[in-house]
Amino acid sequence: MAVPFITEVKRTHTCGQLTKAQIGEEVVLFGWVQNRRDHGGAVFIDLRDREGLTQVVFEPDIAKEAHDLAGQLRLEYCIGIKGKVVSRGSQVNPKLKTGEIEIKASDLTIFNRSEPTPFLVEDNIDTAEEKRLAYRFLDLRRRPLQQSLMTRSKMNAITRSYLNEHRFLELETPFMGKYTPGGARNFLVPSRLNPGKFYALAESPQLYKQLFMVAGFDRYFQIVKCFRDEDLRLDRQPEFTQIDIEMSFVTQDDVFTIVEGLIKKLWGDVLGIDVPTPFMRMDFDESMAKYGNDKPDLRFGLEHVVLTDLIRQHGAAGGVPMIWEAVEQGGIVKAMVIPGDKPLSRAESDKLEEFAKQNGAKGLARAKVGEGGEWTQSPLSKTITPALRQAITQACGAKTGDLIVFQFGRESLVHTVMANLRVHVAKKLGLIPEYGSGGVWKFLWVVNPPLFEYDEETKTWAAAHHAFTRPHDEHVQYLNSDPGRVKCHRYDVVLNGFEIGGGSIRLHDPKVQAEVFKALGIGDEEARTKFGFLLDALKFGAPPHGGIALGMDRLAFLLTGVESLRDVIPFPKTKTGTDLMTGAPGEVDERQLREVHVRAAPLPQK
Amino acid sequence: MAVPFITEVKRTHTCGQLTKAQIGEEVVLFGWVQNRRDHGGAVFIDLRDREGLTQVVFEPDIAKEAHDLAGQLRLEYCIGIKGKVVSRGSQVNPKLKTGEIEIKASDLTIFNRSEPTPFLVEDNIDTAEEKRLAYRFLDLRRRPLQQSLMTRSKMNAITRSYLNEHRFLELETPFMGKYTPGGARNFLVPSRLNPGKFYALAESPQLYKQLFMVAGFDRYFQIVKCFRDEDLRLDRQPEFTQIDIEMSFVTQDDVFTIVEGLIKKLWGDVLGIDVPTPFMRMDFDESMAKYGNDKPDLRFGLEHVVLTDLIRQHGAAGGVPMIWEAVEQGGIVKAMVIPGDKPLSRAESDKLEEFAKQNGAKGLARAKVGEGGEWTQSPLSKTITPALRQAITQACGAKTGDLIVFQFGRESLVHTVMANLRVHVAKKLGLIPEYGSGGVWKFLWVVNPPLFEYDEETKTWAAAHHAFTRPHDEHVQYLNSDPGRVKCHRYDVVLNGFEIGGGSIRLHDPKVQAEVFKALGIGDEEARTKFGFLLDALKFGAPPHGGIALGMDRLAFLLTGVESLRDVIPFPKTKTGTDLMTGAPGEVDERQLREVHVRAAPLPQK
Repeated sequence: MAVPFITEVKRTHTCGQLTKAQIGEEVVLFGWVQNRRDHGGAVFIDLRDREGLTQVVFEPDIAKEAHDLAGQLRLEYCIGIKGKVVSRGSQVNPKLKTGEIEIKASDLTIFNRSEPTPFLVEDNIDTAEEKRLAYRFLDLRRRPLQQSLMTRSKMNAITRSYLNEHRFLELETPFMGKYTPGGARNFLVPSRLNPGKFYALAESPQLYKQLFMVAGFDRYFQIVKCFRDEDLRLDRQPEFTQIDIEMSFVTQDDVFTIVEGLIKKLWGDVLGIDVPTPFMRMDFDESMAKYGNDKPDLRFGLEHVVLTDLIRQHGAAGGVPMIWEAVEQGGIVKAMVIPGDKPLSRAESDKLEEFAKQNGAKGLARAKVGEGGEWTQSPLSKTITPALRQAITQACGAKTGDLIVFQFGRESLVHTVMANLRVHVAKKLGLIPEYGSGGVWKFLWVVNPPLFEYDEETKTWAAAHHAFTRPHDEHVQYLNSDPGRVKCHRYDVVLNGFEIGGGSIRLHDPKVQAEVFKALGIGDEEARTKFGFLLDALKFGAPPHGGIALGMDRLAFLLTGVESLRDVIPFPKTKTGTDLMTGAPGEVDERQLREVHVRAAPLPQK
Repeated sequence: MAVPFITEVKRTHTCGQLTKAQIGEEVVLFGWVQNRRDHGGAVFIDLRDREGLTQVVFEPDIAKEAHDLAGQLRLEYCIGIKGKVVSRGSQVNPKLKTGEIEIKASDLTIFNRSEPTPFLVEDNIDTAEEKRLAYRFLDLRRRPLQQSLMTRSKMNAITRSYLNEHRFLELETPFMGKYTPGGARNFLVPSRLNPGKFYALAESPQLYKQLFMVAGFDRYFQIVKCFRDEDLRLDRQPEFTQIDIEMSFVTQDDVFTIVEGLIKKLWGDVLGIDVPTPFMRMDFDESMAKYGNDKPDLRFGLEHVVLTDLIRQHGAAGGVPMIWEAVEQGGIVKAMVIPGDKPLSRAESDKLEEFAKQNGAKGLARAKVGEGGEWTQSPLSKTITPALRQAITQACGAKTGDLIVFQFGRESLVHTVMANLRVHVAKKLGLIPEYGSGGVWKFLWVVNPPLFEYDEETKTWAAAHHAFTRPHDEHVQYLNSDPGRVKCHRYDVVLNGFEIGGGSIRLHDPKVQAEVFKALGIGDEEARTKFGFLLDALKFGAPPHGGIALGMDRLAFLLTGVESLRDVIPFPKTKTGTDLMTGAPGEVDERQLREVHVRAAPLPQK
C-alpha cells in the first residue's frame, strides 16, 4: 500500500541531521539521489538535500516493493523514503555528519524522475561556465553554490538583526526614479503613461536616504538592489546589492563604529573569526603613495617607494635621463622591491614587464642589487651615477639579491601599474592565494581623500565622489582659492585589496554646499536640474548626517572565499549582460514598443 | 564656550524617552523645533524626533547665551540641546510619554535653520496631496507617516525573523529579466550591450522561485519589489513590494500554516492582537455565490442570495419577464437584503441605483417587504406572482420592513455590482468604517477555484491564474474532456475584503503539465518560447512545491489602518506614475537614447 508521502506522511528530518542519537527511530526523508550502488541484492543510495547527505539502503527481504522501485532510481530523481535509522557499524564515513548511520528503507516514492543531467551535480566539475549558467537550476544543486547562497542568506539575517538592534529603520526607496545626467550610466525605462519620458533605474538610494534624514528618520538601512549600465567586467553585474546605511547627528567615527560592529558580527557568526576593532585607518595620500590605490591589500608588504623628490634632487646629473624627463614633465617615479630571499626566476622577472605593459605601461625598468651594491640586469646601470644608485637602493631598503622595479611618468598610470604589479607579484611569490583570503583578513579605513579631482582634459575641478560630501571644516576656506587642498569626510572600507564599502559625511549646510557648487562650476540652473529637491530639502532644517554603502555581493564573495562573484549570485548575468538561462534580454514586438512610445533603433555600433 | 555637539557631546536620549525616572540627570537631545512659546522671559519649545516630543525651557537667568539663541528659533529648525531633566510639577501633560518632565537647557546649538515650511508639520493637515508629495521630505516628518513607516520597518523585521526561524532562505532574484508576452504588462529596459533587445522588469520572482525549489533550496523567501505597468488606480503603484514565499514537499495546508503563523506574529507583535488560527476557509464557488467575489469582507453579513434556480423553476409564469429573459439567456439572478431594523432613507435607497449604475449595472430592481408580505416601492410588485414573490422573500429570509435589491444578467457583471453594493451598503449602514479595520479582523482562505476560465470573446479556455497551478488529482481526468470542472490548488488569503496574498501548489509533473498546456491550446513552440527554461527544469527531478506571495504594501496599509496605500510607501507615485518630488519620469537627451538603441516615438494616443 502506497505511503501518502507529503499529504499525510511528513518529512521528519533533513538529510544532514541524523546521527547515532536517532538509531532505532523511524524517519521520513525527502531529497535527490546523489548516487546509487547495487551491492549483492541491496540497493544503496546517497540521498541529498540542502543540509547534507544520508545513506539509504533498500533490501529485498525487508521491503520488496521499495527495493524493486529502487531499481529504477537514477541520479537526480526526487524521492521520499521512510525507514529506520540503523548503525553503519564499522562502515562509518567520517567525512559526513550523518556518516555513523544509514536508513533501512521500508517505503519509497518517486516524486519526479530526471533525465540524465547535462553535467554531474558534484562539488568539483570542469564544465564550461556557459553551460552551467544555461542550466543554472542544476548548477545551483551543487554543494559549493548551495553553501555560498545559504551563507549569504545568513549574512542578510545577521545584518538586518544587527542594524535593527541599533535602531536602524528599514525603509524602501523607489527603483524607478529620475534620470540625472552626469552620474553613472543609468538603465532607462520608457514610460507608457507619459509619452516620450523615461524613468532611470536607481543607481543607488543616495538622494532618498539623505531625504530620510531630512525627514527625521534618524537611522535608515536597506539591503537593496542598485542598477548601473556600465561596461561589465568579470566582477561586475548590471544589478548588484548593497547594504545601504544613513545616520543623523554623527561623525565619521560613529559610522565606522557601526560598520565595524557589523563586520565583526558577520565574521564572528558565520566564520567563527574574531575581527579586531577598530580597524586600522590610513590617509588616502599614504595609501596612494605606498600602494598605488585607495584599496590596498595589507596581507603582504611590497610597499611602493616614491622616488620623485630624490630624482628631482639629483636632476639631470643623476644619469637617468628618461626618468628625469618624466619628472620634469610633472610625472612621478615609484619603485618596489621584490625580495631576493625568495626570488622570481629570470623568466618570471621577464614576464613582469609583459604584465606591466598589459596594464598600460610602456615598459618596466628594473635593477638587481649586486654584492657590492652595483645594479645588474638593468639598462639603467650603465648611466646612473653611483650617488643616485646608492640613494635609490637605500630609499628602497633593498638588499643584495633584491630586485627593484620602477615606473615613472603620468601619476595615475604609475600608481595603477605599480598597484597591479604589487598584487601580481604577491601572488607569484605565494604571499597571497590566487583567490580567497588565505585565512588572513586585513580590514582598513582609507580616510581624508581630496574633495575634488582635477580633470586634465577639461581643465576643471570635479567632485571626486559626489557633490554632497562634507569638506573638513578647516578646509572650507580653500574651497575656491585652492580646491586641490580641500580634504573631505569621505571614507572607504577595504578588505584584502577590495573596496567593500564607501561613504561620507554629507553636506547639510546650504551655505557650504553653495560654495562647493561654485568651486565645481555648477551654476544655479544646473544645480536645480540635477539636485533640485535635495537643495530644497536642505533649506528646511536638514540635520548633520552621513552614511555608507557596503557591497553585499562583494562581502559575500570575500567572506565565502569563492572564486567568482557569480558564485554568490543565484542568477547572474554574463559580461554582455545576458542571462544564459532565460535568454534575457530578448526581442519585443513592435506593438509593445509602440505602447511605451519608443522605436528600436539598433544602429551599427561605431 | 560652544559645546562640541555631535563631535564630542553625543546624544544621550531620544525625545520620546525621558520620564520622572531621569529627573536630575544631565541629558543631550537632538531634534526639530515642533513649536515655540515665550512665557515671561523663558522660551519654551517642544523638541521633536522620530520617537516623540520633549519640552525644553530656556531661562535667561540660568543660561543667558542659550536663551538668547533660543530667541532665534523657528519651526523646524534642527537643533541640539544640553540640560537637566526637571519635573513639570503640576503642569504634567498626560498625552505625552515625556509629559512629566521638561529639560532646563544649559546649552543650545542650531545645526540648521529652516525656511517657513509650505505646510505645517502636524498630525492633521488638509494640504492637498499634490503639495505634500512635492515636499515629501517634510510630509514624512508628520507623526502619522513616521509611525506608519516605523511600523512597516518593524513588520519587515518580524517577517524576516519568523521566516528565518522556519528554515526559509532569503535568496535574491534578478529584476532585469526576459520579456514574456501575454503576462502582466511589463516595464521594458533597452539593452545597450545588446542592440535592439530589451529586458523586462520582473513582475514577480515566480519562475525564479520555482527554480530555487528545483535547485533544492527547499524553502525560499524574499521581501521584494515587483513591477507592473498597469493602468494605475488609487491603490496601485507601478512598483510594489511582496513577501514572496516558496516551499518544497508541501500541501496547501502546510503553506497555510506558515502564513497563518506569520500573520499571527505580525498582529501580535505590532498590535498586541491575538489572531485566531487556523483561518476560516471557503470554497471559491461559495464566496462568489454569497459575496460576488473571491475576497469577501466577513466583518458583516448582507450575504447575496442566488435566485437563478428559483426563477428558472417559476419560468415565464413567474411574472417577472425581464428577469426570466436574463436567465433564459444564460444569466444569473442575485438578491441582497438590507435589513429594515436599521433602514436606509428613501433618498439613500434611491442613490443605491445610482451607485449600481456607476458600477456598470443597467439599474437596480428592489422591493420592500410589507406587513402582509406584499412588496412595495417596486415595479416588480405589479406583475410578479404571489408564489414567486413569497418564494423569493423566503429564500432571502427577508422580514417585514426589509429592502430586497436585485441584479440579473451576465454572471460576472451581476457578481461585481452586487459585491460592490454589499460593501457600499455596509459603510452606509455603519457596519464597517470608511477605512480601517474598526478593530475587527476577518481573515479567510478562499480555496478550490477553477483551474480555467472560459474566455467568451476568444471562445477558449485560459488559465485562471497561471499555467503552472496544480489541478486536483481527481480532476486531472477532466483536463481535456471538461476543463470547466477542474478545480485546482490555488488559494487567496483575504482580510476584511482585501486580497492580501495568493498562491498555489505548482505543477511539478511534466506529464500533467503537458496536458494542461494542451487544454490551454498552448503548442510546443509557444510553451518553449514562454516557459522554456522552466519546462527544462521540470525534467530533472523537480520536487513537489508550492508557495504564496503576500502584498506587503497592502498588509502594512491594513495593519496600520491608514487612509491610503501611499501612507505606507515613503516615496509613492501618482496615478499617472509620476513622482511629484523628483519629477520622474523625465526627458532624456537624444544621445542617451541612441546609446541604448532606441528613439522616442511619442505618437498622439488614440
